[in-house]
Amino acid sequence: MTTPEPEHREHRHFDDDLALLNARLVEMARLAAARVDEAMRGLSAREQEPLTHVILGDEEINRFQIEIDDRCFKLLALHQPVAVDLRFVVTAVKVNADLERVGDLAVNIAEAARRYIQRPMAATHSDLPLMAELAQAMLRDALTALVNRDVVLAQDVLRRDDRVDELKNEIFRSLLGVMINDSQAIQPALDLVLISRHLERVGDHATNIA
Amino acid sequence: MTTPEPEHREHRHFDDDLALLNARLVEMARLAAARVDEAMRGLSAREQEPLTHVILGDEEINRFQIEIDDRCFKLLALHQPVAVDLRFVVTAVKVNADLERVGDLAVNIAEAARRYIQRPMAATHSDLPLMAELAQAMLRDALTALVNRDVVLAQDVLRRDDRVDELKNEIFRSLLGVMINDSQAIQPALDLVLISRHLERVGDHATNIA
Repeated sequence: MTTPEPEHREHRHFDDDLALLNARLVEMARLAAARVDEAMRGLSAREQEPLTHVILGDEEINRFQIEIDDRCFKLLALHQPVAVDLRFVVTAVKVNADLERVGDLAVNIAEAARRYIQRPMAATHSDLPLMAELAQAMLRDALTALVNRDVVLAQDVLRRDDRVDELKNEIFRSLLGVMINDSQAIQPALDLVLISRHLERVGDHATNIA
Repeated sequence: MTTPEPEHREHRHFDDDLALLNARLVEMARLAAARVDEAMRGLSAREQEPLTHVILGDEEINRFQIEIDDRCFKLLALHQPVAVDLRFVVTAVKVNADLERVGDLAVNIAEAARRYIQRPMAATHSDLPLMAELAQAMLRDALTALVNRDVVLAQDVLRRDDRVDELKNEIFRSLLGVMINDSQAIQPALDLVLISRHLERVGDHATNIA
């Protein structure tokens, strides 16, 4: 009767670690999405302060990534999971890398936004906030799909990536027109084009996760 | 005398699998770098054919990624490696994802180049090929550093990322000037800006790997 007990304890311990890994991934996703949101708010409100906060806050996401990576590594080393559990931990390593990139993209958006708000408002684009919302919702849902192992929701995320790509193309065409008509608008319009590319990539990472 | 033999055989089998994983990663890196190279040649020579080849060839890299992922997964599941070997396999999963993105970036470069060469040559930038060379060399060296576990070379790759970022900023500033002076140049210059961003990201993936 001595063998089953430690095995049982070991197994419960593994489930706890897996649940904690899940929770940390969800929290990291929330943090990364919040950074994108903050950068976009700084852009819309033309406010320096949230942009600086996003740019300086990247270290936190990097530390988060290292912590989650370490958690995955320990899970593999200590419990040597198999089959579906192994696949989940390997997926977590990849998702973690995707979320860290989303944090980098929030910094890229904030940097472009900082240049943009320092100049007169010669170019705007009303679809950028919509694009940001779509990309963030994709990210949230991709994580929910992963944690709840919800295939239908994951497929829904993949489907929505087309809409984000469409918006990116519409924004590109429209801002190109603005630039051709008004040379004063070139610099700000270019920053908006770059921001739309960063948002597209947020959607791409959500797609990877899904 | 029966126990050591299968263990020995098992271990040799693991080393073989690990060597094969290494070789496949190097091959995938070479393929991804070759795609970037081909896209840049299509751009410089203003030739449609290599660009179409890059765009249509993405499936091959995607299949490669799935194969390598599967290889990593089986290594973990069958051999349950520990310590440095475990860390290597987990790293391989991440590197594999980075290389697949480099393939995507080659497609992005080819798509922008295809638009670019369809218009009169109103904007050029002589530093783009240099930037492409630097980014590809970083990628090659990052893989060599990984496979040979060469820390000095890995640090050298990290150091070179600053030069790629500098070039990106110089190209941006210079093309912005071109766009402001000549509205005919806006569209082609914008495509070159986007290409320089894609090349910067190739450098970023090399940095991730390093």
